[in-house]
Amino acid sequence: MTRSVAVAPSTRPEMFDVLCKSVQDAGANLCTVEEAEGLIWADPSKANLFPEISASAPNLKWIQLPYAGIEPFVPYLEDKWTWTCGKGIYAREVAETALSLSLGGFKNLHGYSRATSWGEPIGRVLGDSRVCILGAGGITQCLLPLLQPFGCDITVVRRRSEPLEGANRTITTSRLFEILPRIDLLILALSLTEETRGIINKEVLSALPDHAWIVNVARGGHIVTDDLLEALQQGTIGGAALDVTTPEPLPDDHPLWKEPNCLITPHIGNTPEMGLRVLGPFISENVNRFCNNEELLGLVDVNQGY
Amino acid sequence: MTRSVAVAPSTRPEMFDVLCKSVQDAGANLCTVEEAEGLIWADPSKANLFPEISASAPNLKWIQLPYAGIEPFVPYLEDKWTWTCGKGIYAREVAETALSLSLGGFKNLHGYSRATSWGEPIGRVLGDSRVCILGAGGITQCLLPLLQPFGCDITVVRRRSEPLEGANRTITTSRLFEILPRIDLLILALSLTEETRGIINKEVLSALPDHAWIVNVARGGHIVTDDLLEALQQGTIGGAALDVTTPEPLPDDHPLWKEPNCLITPHIGNTPEMGLRVLGPFISENVNRFCNNEELLGLVDVNQGY
Repeated sequence: MTRSVAVAPSTRPEMFDVLCKSVQDAGANLCTVEEAEGLIWADPSKANLFPEISASAPNLKWIQLPYAGIEPFVPYLEDKWTWTCGKGIYAREVAETALSLSLGGFKNLHGYSRATSWGEPIGRVLGDSRVCILGAGGITQCLLPLLQPFGCDITVVRRRSEPLEGANRTITTSRLFEILPRIDLLILALSLTEETRGIINKEVLSALPDHAWIVNVARGGHIVTDDLLEALQQGTIGGAALDVTTPEPLPDDHPLWKEPNCLITPHIGNTPEMGLRVLGPFISENVNRFCNNEELLGLVDVNQGY
Repeated sequence: MTRSVAVAPSTRPEMFDVLCKSVQDAGANLCTVEEAEGLIWADPSKANLFPEISASAPNLKWIQLPYAGIEPFVPYLEDKWTWTCGKGIYAREVAETALSLSLGGFKNLHGYSRATSWGEPIGRVLGDSRVCILGAGGITQCLLPLLQPFGCDITVVRRRSEPLEGANRTITTSRLFEILPRIDLLILALSLTEETRGIINKEVLSALPDHAWIVNVARGGHIVTDDLLEALQQGTIGGAALDVTTPEPLPDDHPLWKEPNCLITPHIGNTPEMGLRVLGPFISENVNRFCNNEELLGLVDVNQGY
C-alpha cells in the first residue's frame, strides 16, 4: 500500500534531500505536510517549528524524528500520533567513540597531545580493569562486544536487573553506590529522563576511586557540571572524557577547557557525515514498514519520554 | 637442580630488587656475576656495561635481557651463550596502546585535546575500515582479537605468507605496495632488523591514501622521520601516532611536535610500572626453566638479531 509521507522542515538542505530520497526509495508518495500521513522531521535543531507544521497536517498519524535523543520534542509528545526516533541506529558509532575516549583517558592521550616535549611514560591498562556502564540500550549493547577481548570486569546498571550478554553482572540503579568505590571506569550510555538528569553529582563523584575516569557519550545533562569540575580540580577522580556537555556547546571561557585531566570532544559520537550514511537507509526501512502496516523501528514511549 | 644466577647491573634499584626476588622465588642460587651460570640483565639503558660484566663471568651460559627490543645488545650477541629476552611478555599492553593510538587518531583526540573551544564534529569510524599490520609477532597476535569486534578488513604483512588467525589475509613484505593504496590504517608492530629499518619511507608514504593514519608501536627506526614529516606537512597522509621515534626521546625543538596531525606518546607501550608487574613472574618462570634444563622462553635468534 502506498501512503503519503512528507519531509519537513527544509532548513537543513543536505539532510532534507537525503530524507526525501529515502521516502521515495521506500515507494511512498512524497507529499506536502498538508496531505501527509507520515512526517519525517528533517532538522533536529528546529523543534520549535513543530506546533505550526503539525497543525497544518490534519491526516498525520506518524512522526519520525531523526536522532536518538528526543528531548527538544518532549513538550509535543502527544499520544494521538505514533512517534519514532533514530534510537539505536547510531549506537555502533557512539560505542566506538566511548571506547576511544576510555582508552584516550587511560593512556593520557589528552596530556600527551598538549605536550611539546618528551615526558614520562604514564598510563593505565584497560585490560582486566573494572568497568561500570550506566544504561543497557543500543550503545551499551554495541560497546560490550568491543570491550569483550579486554577481559574487563563489567557491571551494567539499568532499571531492571535482567542479565545482559557480555556483562559480568547487571544491577539496578538503587545499588549504584555499592559498586562505585571499586570501579576504574564509569561510562554513561543511558537516556536522559527526569530520573537520570544530574545522576552524576557530588555524592557519586566522591564515591569513586581517585584514579577512576568518567566517559560521557549520553547527554550532558546526566552530569552536574559544577560537581564534576570540583572533582577534577581537587583530583578526587582520575579524569573525565566528555562527548556531551552542559551547557552544550561548552562556552569558550568555561573552566573545563583548562582542566588537565578533562578531554572534551564536540559531540562526535556520530558526526553528521556518519549520521546521514546510516540515517537514510533506516528512514527508508521505516517508511516501508509504515506503508505495509508493519511494526515501526525506534518507537518512542510517549509516557516515559524516550 | 639449583643453579647460580646473578642479577646485574644494579644501576636501576627498583628493577634490580624485583629481579633478585624473581631469581630467589624460582629457587635458584642468587649469586655474584663471578659465579653465575645465568645472568639477568637489570638495566636496559646500560648495554655498554655488558662487555666488562660478562668478562668477569667465566661460567656464564645464559643471558636474560629484560625488554623485548634487544638492539643495544646486538654487538654482543655471541652464540657461545644462550640469549633470551622479554619478547612477547609486554605484547598485550603494547597492543592496547596500538588500538588506543589508532582510535585516538581516527577520532581526532589529539586535535580536540589541544582545542580550547567547541569545534566541528569530525572523525573517522574504525569499524569496517581497512587495516594493515606490519609484523606477525606477539603484539599483532594480541592486537587481532582487540580489532575483531570492529569488523575491519585486516591484512598482516610478514616474511612468510602463512595465515594468522583473526587476519583476513597474510601477505609477504614484497607485496606491500599492492595493498597500500587501499588501506585506512597502517600499524607497525614488527621487529627492527637491518631489513626493516626505514621500511616506512617516502615511497610507502606516497602510496597511502591521504586519509590514512600510521601508528608505530614498534621501533622509531622503522620510519624515516624526515619522510614522515614531509608527508604530514604536505597532507599526503591523514596523520601519525607515534609511541616510538627516531631520535628517541624526540628533542624539544623537533618539528614533529608542531604537526597538527601528529600524536606523540613517550614510549608508553608499556610503562615501567606495568613492565615490572609482568617482568617479575616471567623471569621467575625462565629461571625455573633454566634450573630444570627446560626450553627457555623468549629465545633470541643470534643470527637474525631478534
